[in-house]
Amino acid sequence: MSSNEYFSIKFEDGRVTYLDQTVLPLEENYITTGDYEVLAKAIEGLEVRGAPLIGITAAYGLALAIKDDASRSQFEKAYNRLLSTRPTAVNLSWALNRLKHLYESAAEQSNRYELLLDKAREIHEDDIAMCRRMGENGLQVFPGKAVVITHCNTGKLATGGDGTAFAVIKAAHEHGLIEHVYADETRPLLQGSRLTAYELDKSGIPFSIQPDNAAASLMASGKVDLVITGSDRIAANGDAANKIGTYMLALCCKHHGIPFYIAAPSSTIDPECPDGSHIPIEQRKAEEITSIRETAVTHPSYPVHNPAFDVTPADLIAGIITEKDCFKPPYDFSR
Amino acid sequence: MSSNEYFSIKFEDGRVTYLDQTVLPLEENYITTGDYEVLAKAIEGLEVRGAPLIGITAAYGLALAIKDDASRSQFEKAYNRLLSTRPTAVNLSWALNRLKHLYESAAEQSNRYELLLDKAREIHEDDIAMCRRMGENGLQVFPGKAVVITHCNTGKLATGGDGTAFAVIKAAHEHGLIEHVYADETRPLLQGSRLTAYELDKSGIPFSIQPDNAAASLMASGKVDLVITGSDRIAANGDAANKIGTYMLALCCKHHGIPFYIAAPSSTIDPECPDGSHIPIEQRKAEEITSIRETAVTHPSYPVHNPAFDVTPADLIAGIITEKDCFKPPYDFSR
Repeated sequence: MSSNEYFSIKFEDGRVTYLDQTVLPLEENYITTGDYEVLAKAIEGLEVRGAPLIGITAAYGLALAIKDDASRSQFEKAYNRLLSTRPTAVNLSWALNRLKHLYESAAEQSNRYELLLDKAREIHEDDIAMCRRMGENGLQVFPGKAVVITHCNTGKLATGGDGTAFAVIKAAHEHGLIEHVYADETRPLLQGSRLTAYELDKSGIPFSIQPDNAAASLMASGKVDLVITGSDRIAANGDAANKIGTYMLALCCKHHGIPFYIAAPSSTIDPECPDGSHIPIEQRKAEEITSIRETAVTHPSYPVHNPAFDVTPADLIAGIITEKDCFKPPYDFSR
Repeated sequence: MSSNEYFSIKFEDGRVTYLDQTVLPLEENYITTGDYEVLAKAIEGLEVRGAPLIGITAAYGLALAIKDDASRSQFEKAYNRLLSTRPTAVNLSWALNRLKHLYESAAEQSNRYELLLDKAREIHEDDIAMCRRMGENGLQVFPGKAVVITHCNTGKLATGGDGTAFAVIKAAHEHGLIEHVYADETRPLLQGSRLTAYELDKSGIPFSIQPDNAAASLMASGKVDLVITGSDRIAANGDAANKIGTYMLALCCKHHGIPFYIAAPSSTIDPECPDGSHIPIEQRKAEEITSIRETAVTHPSYPVHNPAFDVTPADLIAGIITEKDCFKPPYDFSR
């Protein structure tokens, strides 16, 4: 592997190798294991994060768990252990349940390990293909060589493939369409300055980190051509929930006449959710604001408003790029 | 002093006592000294910060420097030492030059120390009175009991009195006009979560700290009545430079129909500066983004865009509150 290559997860010779994201970008620490408990701890401890990547990691873990003992009790122990690692991650239960279904239907067979491993690989490969198609579908939003702002982390470190918004940026870079990327540092957890910066650097894409609050003046200077982010959940009308700060970026885009795009797998679109007002916003703990990487920055007793996400209304979104298409407003995902 | 009282600087019994702001809010460390070199180091090391407060501290320091030796060589040595502490602070040279003028005109007199000390006290008292008048002039912008967002630090810790925007918030609180204050943490230097939170807590004003990028979704929720910040420099047309992120806040206010106010001493208005495009914006060092309080958060080699200020155009500002008046658009400061 050259110094510029990296991966978030790989299965080889009966073992999983993953990159520990908690120490990035200061250390690049790859961990190889055949033990599902190590993978469960990696998900729990955020060494592996990002919804699709969590699902893939758990799937490999569940297959590995029954390599030497494919009994029902061993399967269920591992299934429950892996499911408990991040209770709210939808991709986690989705991936584990696909393997569970296979285990049940193959109850009489002796090659359950191979069957489950093949399914885990399929989930991983499907994600890689989906990321590639998002990248290709996103090329059309580039008017030419562009300066781009992005927010949070949406690359290899969050998915099995090249990512969502990051896959679009990477594909654009490969087509000579990227002049510069400004990566919002993304308070409070700094996914931008830690992880997106790492991925941009590794990919040889010219970039700068900036404080989230510097985006508006950068736009006013006339230097920004488009903004692209991921999304955690998209309502049927196109309202999109994403990392806190995304809505603020989209508002600034509107004022400056800069197009704002979302890139996300079509599974992010929730047809049961009519609009953004039905998306619950998680309040996260005060410690994320009062301390940074375990260093206290202010008094731990101070009250904190720390919403994890915000909702960008559909009318601020110039296009939603999925693996299927680049949808344009008014949004109709049923076609 | 009760546990809820605090001050940034005080002169008593021939000595200055100041609050070391570098360790706030985790420690409240008051330092008493009669030595101007200690005060020079305090300004240099940011133990004392905020343009008006720096001027006041330097003035006391210059008076103290000639208490036992009022010779010209001693005076000039202290003058030059204090002037060198923060080369770009306008209030610093302004205050020191007022004392220098007095020293020159009093060359034959024996009571130079008392003369200079009286002038330092006058500068301090003038600032206290100016802050009080800003607070009073700001009351008119409150439609009733209000939820307020503020950005950066503008209180006692930045001035000799109650501050600028903070003086308005404090006066409003004393008139029962504050329901809640959201203090932006203010990346990168966290003046909001460290210093403004300290001042709100000490003043008994209900508050929460929030990441800068959470302001827009809070506004969308309908919870915010007005936004008020300070300013470092106001052009003749009303364009106002302030801490990075202020312009982004003002844009979000416009979209949500929330009034955005500036509070600043009239000395901040620069009649020689026709509009915001003439205000130079300082780029600050990458370390402010790649590390936080000396803890590395990302790779120190990553490129950073770190502007200290942005400019809010006059048409986004509902009013500019000074010690003289609350100016309304279109701005004409000559009256």
